[in-house]
Amino acid sequence: MTKAVVLLSGGLDSATTLAIAKSERYDCYTLSFDYGQRHKVELLAAQRIATQLGVCEHKTLSFDLGQFGGSALTDDSIAVPDQPTQGIPVTYVPARNTIFLSLALGWAEVLQASDIFIGVNAVDYSGYPDCRPAYIAAYETMANLATKASTEGRPFHIHVPLINKTKAEIILRGRQLQVDYASTISCYQADEQGGACGSCDACRLRAQGFEEAGLMDVTKYQSE
Amino acid sequence: MTKAVVLLSGGLDSATTLAIAKSERYDCYTLSFDYGQRHKVELLAAQRIATQLGVCEHKTLSFDLGQFGGSALTDDSIAVPDQPTQGIPVTYVPARNTIFLSLALGWAEVLQASDIFIGVNAVDYSGYPDCRPAYIAAYETMANLATKASTEGRPFHIHVPLINKTKAEIILRGRQLQVDYASTISCYQADEQGGACGSCDACRLRAQGFEEAGLMDVTKYQSE
Repeated sequence: MTKAVVLLSGGLDSATTLAIAKSERYDCYTLSFDYGQRHKVELLAAQRIATQLGVCEHKTLSFDLGQFGGSALTDDSIAVPDQPTQGIPVTYVPARNTIFLSLALGWAEVLQASDIFIGVNAVDYSGYPDCRPAYIAAYETMANLATKASTEGRPFHIHVPLINKTKAEIILRGRQLQVDYASTISCYQADEQGGACGSCDACRLRAQGFEEAGLMDVTKYQSE
Repeated sequence: MTKAVVLLSGGLDSATTLAIAKSERYDCYTLSFDYGQRHKVELLAAQRIATQLGVCEHKTLSFDLGQFGGSALTDDSIAVPDQPTQGIPVTYVPARNTIFLSLALGWAEVLQASDIFIGVNAVDYSGYPDCRPAYIAAYETMANLATKASTEGRPFHIHVPLINKTKAEIILRGRQLQVDYASTISCYQADEQGGACGSCDACRLRAQGFEEAGLMDVTKYQSE
């Protein structure tokens, strides 16, 4: 078995990514971040999924991006839009995936793991720049100049198994792998019980995915 | 005036970098990290230097790389070497500059700053891979694919004013700019009063720098 670090937010995409990494026979070390996000309840979902899918170790690292603000997800004074908006939405968190991947890289190097999985998707997504293939390729190039492991001939590989899949394809793949989507939380403003708002970008993409996949939406909504 | 984020550890190099950024007429926003480092006292030095040099804002962000371990600086069970060692020393912190730059990138984007300064040096250094010019160039390329700002035509520039300077040249430049080196702490295992051990890699490079510059070493050592 080969070790991999898998970024696990507690959402649908990262849960599927973890299931894919497991199906590819990696020993998975999952990493979540308590970064000052509005939907902190996703961390409980991440813990549940890590347990359900049987990871070697699950860590949650804390740091407060609320100190920087500048995003609806980390700054309470910026509302999460309940309608689609033009361009990159205000839920964009500056440099988020770069920060997340960098911490994953640090842990991977300590674990002597060369493989990092992240559930970014550039099809049914919000247009965040740090979800695109060119970004991931540039990140991998940078990572392989950054580290002792890579200078010693053990390069890192950033795996993005969802990057070209539609949300429906992601859900269908996850179902094959027996991901319990009722345990996942995608909503940007889920309540403390994990109830989803049904109107944010993350909720819309998720609901469309279930619909297009022809499956029942197992999401728990706040009105229920 | 143009805004810049300057990474400030509290050591000699980052203090000089801040003074250079100020001399280039940037409005400086300094960022330090409480990352579980053995020499946490450097954070007090960073605060002093930020005050002395007159920054717009100084932030300290906390996260615990001790959760990952794997370095003499974040894991108490690994000793800091008191003699030069072959290869990249155990004081290397996996992905440290990548993590630091990524958080700086996040803050810079929120501030609408396009300039980030980091005091890395690839001449009188410990051989850390994330201090080399090729790494910095790759980081900048990645950052400009990662962010909303760069996709909107405001690319980031990573400034490394010390990268090709000897330690003596750094010190002489800082003296011209009236950096108070007595306020800085370079030692990897400084005591709570900021007293330096005199034997770690950081202390050796610093002492050699003062000697080669023909200047009195203003470092406060533990034996004094």
